[in-house]
Amino acid sequence: MQYIAPLAKLIEHFRALPGIGPKSAVRLAYHVLDMDAEKAKALAGAIMEAKEKIGFCTTCFNLSDRNPCEICASEKRDHTTICVVEQPQDVAAMERMHDYHGVYHVLHGALSPLEGIGPEKLRIRELLVRLQSSDVKEIIMATNPNVEGEATAMYIARLLKPMGLRVTRIAHGLPVGGDLEYADEVTLAKAMENRVEL
Amino acid sequence: MQYIAPLAKLIEHFRALPGIGPKSAVRLAYHVLDMDAEKAKALAGAIMEAKEKIGFCTTCFNLSDRNPCEICASEKRDHTTICVVEQPQDVAAMERMHDYHGVYHVLHGALSPLEGIGPEKLRIRELLVRLQSSDVKEIIMATNPNVEGEATAMYIARLLKPMGLRVTRIAHGLPVGGDLEYADEVTLAKAMENRVEL
Repeated sequence: MQYIAPLAKLIEHFRALPGIGPKSAVRLAYHVLDMDAEKAKALAGAIMEAKEKIGFCTTCFNLSDRNPCEICASEKRDHTTICVVEQPQDVAAMERMHDYHGVYHVLHGALSPLEGIGPEKLRIRELLVRLQSSDVKEIIMATNPNVEGEATAMYIARLLKPMGLRVTRIAHGLPVGGDLEYADEVTLAKAMENRVEL
Repeated sequence: MQYIAPLAKLIEHFRALPGIGPKSAVRLAYHVLDMDAEKAKALAGAIMEAKEKIGFCTTCFNLSDRNPCEICASEKRDHTTICVVEQPQDVAAMERMHDYHGVYHVLHGALSPLEGIGPEKLRIRELLVRLQSSDVKEIIMATNPNVEGEATAMYIARLLKPMGLRVTRIAHGLPVGGDLEYADEVTLAKAMENRVEL
């Protein structure tokens, strides 16, 4: 036994976190032991508090400490436009843009038959229920620009089109500040295809 | 405000940990929110438990959940040899070797005038006290092979030599499995200087 039991346990817990390798886990654990007692208590407290206070908004399924969440409850937001994203992190990314004033719907994943994630595991049914009781005009599919995200966008678009809704997909193209030389062919082809008049 | 308060607080706490950048902190925080409630509780509990149960051994100042620590209390260890290291992590590294059977003394740092770390901030006085009441024969200086570690080893060696103790320094040389081509000149010079008969 290389480490004393409480330390070994802490290392194991850190090791289970994403992006934390064995060496980082040891480093973090020793750092915690080196912290002031109050700081360590505050860290543990923040973990507990976040878990206890944060739940899902039952309208958009974003993470929130109130229900409905701030965005769904806001009078300033355009409730006739719903942006559909995969994860709560994606809502944060959209909000960082400060340019979208509609509301959101968080699917909590993307369709992935290989991983056994079918439509029933996503919040798609909740989206359909939500659409029945509101006068939404446009649904913007902002799932990730990868195979799973595209499939999810297509799947939901096909469900919604018959309802007479406008369903759009965020554009593919070259990232701003990117380098044409290093763009992959698929992105470049999409950028050409979606070219706009100047 | 981009993140809701309890989430922002958790991100900030993760951000304060070593090697965790802003993006990793966000990723870790969302991961915690995504965990089972029991797992999150266990993580917070492990932090608290490690802080509460682990203290310093008052003999060698290594981290321990008992006092004296397992190594200092062991009958199987050679108590006439003390290996002096900078940090508790260094004890773990030495123990991984499974080849040292003496005891340790953890300084909790190295001399660094630029950072205002003088001898009084290290556990040097405690080492001297410890030597007075035991029949130690050899002190192995295993501080880090950098400027601060060398200075610390030299400083302590000068304090101990007049006491008639054998004071040694771990060898410098090429790391096993290393590449001569990429060795720095100082290491290479040390490796030549410390060459042994075959």
